[in-house]
Amino acid sequence: MERRRFIGTAGLAGILAAGAAPAVHAAQAIRWRLASRLPKSMDIPHAGVQAFIRQVKELSDGKFEISLFAADELASGAGVLESVQRGSAECGHTSAHYYIDKDEAFALDSAIPFGMNARQTAAWLQHGNGLALLREFYRGYGIVNFPMGNTGAQMGGWYRKPLRSPADLKGLRMRIAGLGGEVLARLGAKPGYLSSNETFAALQAGRIDAAEWSSPHDDLKLGLHDTCKHYAFPGWWKGGAQYALYINRRAYDALTEENQTIVAAAAAAAHQDILAQYDFRNPQALRELAATGTQLVALPKAVLDAAWKASQDLFADLSARNPQWRKIHASYAAFLKEQGWSHAERGFAAYMHERQLQALAEEQRKKPAPAKRR
Amino acid sequence: MERRRFIGTAGLAGILAAGAAPAVHAAQAIRWRLASRLPKSMDIPHAGVQAFIRQVKELSDGKFEISLFAADELASGAGVLESVQRGSAECGHTSAHYYIDKDEAFALDSAIPFGMNARQTAAWLQHGNGLALLREFYRGYGIVNFPMGNTGAQMGGWYRKPLRSPADLKGLRMRIAGLGGEVLARLGAKPGYLSSNETFAALQAGRIDAAEWSSPHDDLKLGLHDTCKHYAFPGWWKGGAQYALYINRRAYDALTEENQTIVAAAAAAAHQDILAQYDFRNPQALRELAATGTQLVALPKAVLDAAWKASQDLFADLSARNPQWRKIHASYAAFLKEQGWSHAERGFAAYMHERQLQALAEEQRKKPAPAKRR
Repeated sequence: MERRRFIGTAGLAGILAAGAAPAVHAAQAIRWRLASRLPKSMDIPHAGVQAFIRQVKELSDGKFEISLFAADELASGAGVLESVQRGSAECGHTSAHYYIDKDEAFALDSAIPFGMNARQTAAWLQHGNGLALLREFYRGYGIVNFPMGNTGAQMGGWYRKPLRSPADLKGLRMRIAGLGGEVLARLGAKPGYLSSNETFAALQAGRIDAAEWSSPHDDLKLGLHDTCKHYAFPGWWKGGAQYALYINRRAYDALTEENQTIVAAAAAAAHQDILAQYDFRNPQALRELAATGTQLVALPKAVLDAAWKASQDLFADLSARNPQWRKIHASYAAFLKEQGWSHAERGFAAYMHERQLQALAEEQRKKPAPAKRR
Repeated sequence: MERRRFIGTAGLAGILAAGAAPAVHAAQAIRWRLASRLPKSMDIPHAGVQAFIRQVKELSDGKFEISLFAADELASGAGVLESVQRGSAECGHTSAHYYIDKDEAFALDSAIPFGMNARQTAAWLQHGNGLALLREFYRGYGIVNFPMGNTGAQMGGWYRKPLRSPADLKGLRMRIAGLGGEVLARLGAKPGYLSSNETFAALQAGRIDAAEWSSPHDDLKLGLHDTCKHYAFPGWWKGGAQYALYINRRAYDALTEENQTIVAAAAAAAHQDILAQYDFRNPQALRELAATGTQLVALPKAVLDAAWKASQDLFADLSARNPQWRKIHASYAAFLKEQGWSHAERGFAAYMHERQLQALAEEQRKKPAPAKRR
């Protein structure tokens, strides 16, 4: 690809030569390593990270190069945080909810039960003091964080038998990541963490009763519809699961201001791109899943209400014993409460979705052929 | 501000000097003019444009500078499109819906009745072929377009008397911009366009019966609550009103690839920032408006249904007589239909909004003091 094109045509208003002598640039090349927590099979964030790397290179005219390493190549699975902390990778891409065992406040950089959706998260971070609070938190880990991707609202998990009431949660063995598991435990379930392959195998063999993995797009790729057919919504524990770019603070501070701006701009573009890609793919994936015979089941309101109540109790307990959580969550909760005034956005979405569901139902009636197994 | 910091500290893994000789850069300075359609009082898009300009400068290490001109300084009001076409400004910031008199297809780059919300628009543009189709359309105007900002879903207008049924639309004199006016005309209303100051004056004097201006944040600043107290939702004609950056095609083509990437990255960041700022401010503004005694009124379903039907008729007519509209709208409509499968996003939003409204109602009950006029 041609790296630089010089201006050849005439009549280009506004483009002036700055002077006769070309300026001399300090061409200090930068080589960074990026450790990615996410498996390559998660193609959307993976493509987003690649776009980030490409854009950093382009914006720096080739002088700032980042090499991508998969989780297992450089940092062991859950170790992206530590790798970036130590500087064995200058940066990493991960989901902060993997680190809630260290501090529950990490969840506030990813998703919490009945929390913000993707747009609300962006607004809180950029204009509601959220990013400043998270930056302060990450300072304790020697890390500078940037939001870089969001899956949108996730589904509420795959179930071997549909949940009919909160009582069905008692003893339910469920694969789940993040704070949602803490809430389910309070409701009598037995939550646990498994990797993607383990999740598939355990659900198929009946060693667990339910599992949440990620978005419909990722779930379809993992083939969870081959293990059981009840796919519930909404995923009240991940209304918008955010990915993060972690940068070692010393490496970041050593960048020129221009390169810091480059990193910020490229991360913002990748953030937007990953969310847009999920928003494009998720509805397609849900349609495809439904065509395989997957039953889309709304979680009963009583289950949502019980989970909501248990979530508020959890937050109160966390605020009582974790000052980091208390400080950041206070800002998060105040912002979210204010979003109750989004009458226009919600009213519009509600009307549109009702219309769209009617159109889908009508289409279904016109095609009475039985759903085929794909 | 320090423009460049050199690496002084030791032990910075991954940062290598490229070689002894500093590379020589072709320091061709670029000076562009940006014509903004939006009045300075619309502080959110205005700040977004300023951030765009600042970021282009930073990313180019000061070599690419853009000067901002208000609509009336350089291009007369509705003339941003023409100014950029002619090259009297290399670029401009505007809302495409101002140009629907030239071609209704412009609306597809801003908002159409019962159209996409902000996230859906981004997903369609970036991954659903939307941007490619719009670029092809704008090629006919010698313009390269970038999305740059979105207000989110707007409210459904200010009314001297609340709308109770579709019959109340007959003869209703209403200020409205964009394709929504065409729909209202089909329902018997008398829509028309007025500037911001004219809108305020006409509504206060009763020369019009209703008006839509922009988002709650902008409406509050314009003071429309001083003219009448019924504020309806949702704004079915603007579920997500997008702003656009227009660039003269010859000026764009003359940029180096690096500078083209800089423009794209800075526009993407500004896009995100403007939306996040509206998402932060709009709920606050609605709360403030309610505190002044403004009545937030849901539009009756019968009115929405009538408008929905008239909108579909309008789209069919446009597709029959406008090939540009037909081509782009076919892609737009197919994408929007697929969004019916966003069960997770809608289910989550619906539950959360219900909870938030309950919380607001509870708060209201605890503060029985009468609303004060501000």
